Amino acid sequence: MKIQVVKNVLNANDRIADENRALFDANKLFVMNLMSSPGAGKTSLVERTIAALKDRYRIGVIEGDIQDTCDADRVAALGIPVVQINTGGGCHLDANMIREALGGLDLDHMDLLIVENVGNLVCPAEFKVGEDIKVMLLSTPEGADKPSKYPLIFQKSAAMLLNKIDLLPYLDFDKDKALHDAKALNKDITVFEVSCRTGQGLEQWFDWLKERIDRRGR
Amino acid sequence: MKIQVVKNVLNANDRIADENRALFDANKLFVMNLMSSPGAGKTSLVERTIAALKDRYRIGVIEGDIQDTCDADRVAALGIPVVQINTGGGCHLDANMIREALGGLDLDHMDLLIVENVGNLVCPAEFKVGEDIKVMLLSTPEGADKPSKYPLIFQKSAAMLLNKIDLLPYLDFDKDKALHDAKALNKDITVFEVSCRTGQGLEQWFDWLKERIDRRGR
Repeated sequence: MKIQVVKNVLNANDRIADENRALFDANKLFVMNLMSSPGAGKTSLVERTIAALKDRYRIGVIEGDIQDTCDADRVAALGIPVVQINTGGGCHLDANMIREALGGLDLDHMDLLIVENVGNLVCPAEFKVGEDIKVMLLSTPEGADKPSKYPLIFQKSAAMLLNKIDLLPYLDFDKDKALHDAKALNKDITVFEVSCRTGQGLEQWFDWLKERIDRRGR
Repeated sequence: MKIQVVKNVLNANDRIADENRALFDANKLFVMNLMSSPGAGKTSLVERTIAALKDRYRIGVIEGDIQDTCDADRVAALGIPVVQINTGGGCHLDANMIREALGGLDLDHMDLLIVENVGNLVCPAEFKVGEDIKVMLLSTPEGADKPSKYPLIFQKSAAMLLNKIDLLPYLDFDKDKALHDAKALNKDITVFEVSCRTGQGLEQWFDWLKERIDRRGR
């Protein structure tokens, strides 16, 4: 019975996601759905990515949070159009929330839309919003057991940024195990070892993302 | 419409939680529901707490995970009875899952039951399971903005363990802000600054917990 309800919810979500997708296609817009645990560094990555790519692309951001606008404030401070979705307790963004938020953005004059999901390693991975790619962060303090414990998000993500790599000397983090287990779940996942605090490793991420946005723009 | 469904789910959950509560009362069992983001240190805290209290109390553990048994394996290695709940994708434990798990434990010969929830800073706080207290961990690498972004879990918790305090020298973590904002949400929350890796600060936590278990046992 419970599973039936969940299926209906997900089916209904997928229909709206497909409509969002058609709208993104019509505007040749590349959409990235960014997911991670709370505090893994999503907003820091968004800030770094905007700084690196804003001269090349027109960027917009949708910020998903339970409440408050502190992430959106950080993005707006960079002069980037941003729409805040407050889920009011909900633990993920769904396609309908994104559809509502799109009304606040000028899609026709945008190349890259970054959707920063609610901090949660579970449910966001279940709800597609019409994105081109899902991207996840795993931060080193979270531990190397996360792929085996939260497999879906690793399976669904095109790229994984292993963030806070600068903290490795101070942690008991088995990087080889984390990367091995992530690849075992998703052999196609592209991994970047980065620090959004120091900037380490981010150039490769920018290059990878640029290639995908350019391909989309053709 | 959506809110109506959620209300029904929560009402149904609360009824079962009350039944669990009656069972715990009948057995004079103290039950702690432990919650945090993924990788904040729940299982490490469970291990430390068992090591410190197992000569004084008879302890049991329920481990909640999406899949796998690696946390339960860690607890079982300490010689403590443990039941694993695999939610199969679900992002929190609910009262009915706990009721099912109780069949695997000898409640009549137990003083403390630790329920380790699924790693998630959002949904676990919404579902009571019949516990005496909710306890949360916030780990320093997650950042000081967590209280303002995930308020419910701070509001519902009797205690907050600020874990990974040993990493403070390597982080941009505004501890004063985090503690101020947590207290603003819940003036009664008791805060412990700890490191489950080094053991720092845990004695105060053990004393606090012992006092509550002893009071319960009367």
